[in-house]
Amino acid sequence: MITRVEIEQWFQNLQDKICKGLEQADGKGKFQEDKWEHHAGGGGRSRVIRNGEVLEKGGVNFSAVSGKMPELLLKTLKVEADTKEELRFHATGVSIVLHPKSPMTPIIHMNVRYFEMTNGTWWFGGGIDLTPHYVSKDLARDFHRRMKAVCDAHHPSYYSEFKPWADEYFYIRHRQETRGIGGIFFDRLSNNDDFDKAARWAFVQDVGNAFVPTYTYQIEQTRNLSYGEEQVHWQRLRRGRYAEFNLVWDRGTKFGLQTNGRTESILMSLPPQANWVYNYQTEEKSPEANTLDLLKKGINWIEE
Amino acid sequence: MITRVEIEQWFQNLQDKICKGLEQADGKGKFQEDKWEHHAGGGGRSRVIRNGEVLEKGGVNFSAVSGKMPELLLKTLKVEADTKEELRFHATGVSIVLHPKSPMTPIIHMNVRYFEMTNGTWWFGGGIDLTPHYVSKDLARDFHRRMKAVCDAHHPSYYSEFKPWADEYFYIRHRQETRGIGGIFFDRLSNNDDFDKAARWAFVQDVGNAFVPTYTYQIEQTRNLSYGEEQVHWQRLRRGRYAEFNLVWDRGTKFGLQTNGRTESILMSLPPQANWVYNYQTEEKSPEANTLDLLKKGINWIEE
Repeated sequence: MITRVEIEQWFQNLQDKICKGLEQADGKGKFQEDKWEHHAGGGGRSRVIRNGEVLEKGGVNFSAVSGKMPELLLKTLKVEADTKEELRFHATGVSIVLHPKSPMTPIIHMNVRYFEMTNGTWWFGGGIDLTPHYVSKDLARDFHRRMKAVCDAHHPSYYSEFKPWADEYFYIRHRQETRGIGGIFFDRLSNNDDFDKAARWAFVQDVGNAFVPTYTYQIEQTRNLSYGEEQVHWQRLRRGRYAEFNLVWDRGTKFGLQTNGRTESILMSLPPQANWVYNYQTEEKSPEANTLDLLKKGINWIEE
Repeated sequence: MITRVEIEQWFQNLQDKICKGLEQADGKGKFQEDKWEHHAGGGGRSRVIRNGEVLEKGGVNFSAVSGKMPELLLKTLKVEADTKEELRFHATGVSIVLHPKSPMTPIIHMNVRYFEMTNGTWWFGGGIDLTPHYVSKDLARDFHRRMKAVCDAHHPSYYSEFKPWADEYFYIRHRQETRGIGGIFFDRLSNNDDFDKAARWAFVQDVGNAFVPTYTYQIEQTRNLSYGEEQVHWQRLRRGRYAEFNLVWDRGTKFGLQTNGRTESILMSLPPQANWVYNYQTEEKSPEANTLDLLKKGINWIEE
């Protein structure tokens, strides 16, 4: 049986591997580490990068937090009142958001996490999604093919389940647009007739391992593309939308802020700079308008 | 008895007066108007200003919206299930957020609003609060004296009630700092033994009328102060906090976004540009550190 400590150690290791891989892809930037403790128990290692060659601002966080179940979570999970008192939780995971300097390179996000309660309940969750400032169908196809390959290696229904889940989750409702081209999202993966814990864990590990090659490919294909003021302006507007999603809709961010998580680690996902222009309109048939047209749920990127 | 239509007309008029007053104070910028309709009923007039001499980005919105009571609001108000069905509401008000170009000039926000339901319930709400990028005690004192004067003209307990209410409301919980130096905030002001509708309305009108002279004074005292790159950088970080407050904690913003309000009008409060730096630390005894020290609840600005 896979233990929590084993999972925590693997996640710590994953953080190391990803930071190394990203430093290699970047070529200049180095991650700086901050260790921190959570008021309830446990803590984490935040690793942040600034002003790299490719990565302007980003973070790769590991955390392993434990404590009494927060009221908010008990309510969400609809836990019975009589078992509440002694319930404790352990949560561990790796969270990544990277904002590249070039508007031609997409923003990327990954999260893999494990959660257990002292009553024996456990599950895995996570996902990867890509947010290009300018959507390239070729790069979107490559990204989704890789996500599908990871899924297909574990269950034929995974991609067809987790891809639409990402479309739903990474949706900026008040803008009626998706945050980017989606990816995969999954939550509460526990054991059932089809999967035991080892099977779920193997999948989550593969998601984690797919991150560096997936993003390195995006970097390599875009790092030498030229751009000007206009593209930078559009990037900043899109970063504004990214900030809106994270602050208004992202459940992880909201939960963290409402339960007194470590603010700097939670908000490392915010862009270095974001702009807002009242009622901004793109020019018809411009690359910006084309991108907006593609920020929709339900696109089959692999066949596009 | 004061009618809803009367209130709506006065608010529309207030919008006109405030836009004129601000254009005069700015000297260069002009407001552009967008009329819009709400999907549920009613609509509004958004007035936005861009790249003025003083005002970099801002809006003065009037709206008068009506419709079936949203589920979210029924829940908040704990309205009984059997009366829900036929309940409709009318809400009208003026909302302002102004982001000045100079980091030496404070951001300001005002809201005055009236709400009524078809079951006869009604109330007023609103407030004004000031968010200096650099706190000046003299300017904070002037601001709070004016707020207190408006309050004192209507009831001796108003300021001592509405000032702490602003401290509580405009609080960025996850940062453990107030958004700025506060001001006044009030909500659900209905009739009771001390106040009839006319008395409440007279107060709200005075709050609205205080806006232009209050902010014009702030502008006049700061518009010629010099500043450099460093101050602009700090301004952008503080604008980031402003965005965080509005998107994470502001009830009006959240309610608007969750009930499909007009996004561009709701988010006109966002700054033209905001920056985020991981774990930013101010230098000891710097003006930035002094400002952070003053972003606390419970400061008596009038006697500071």
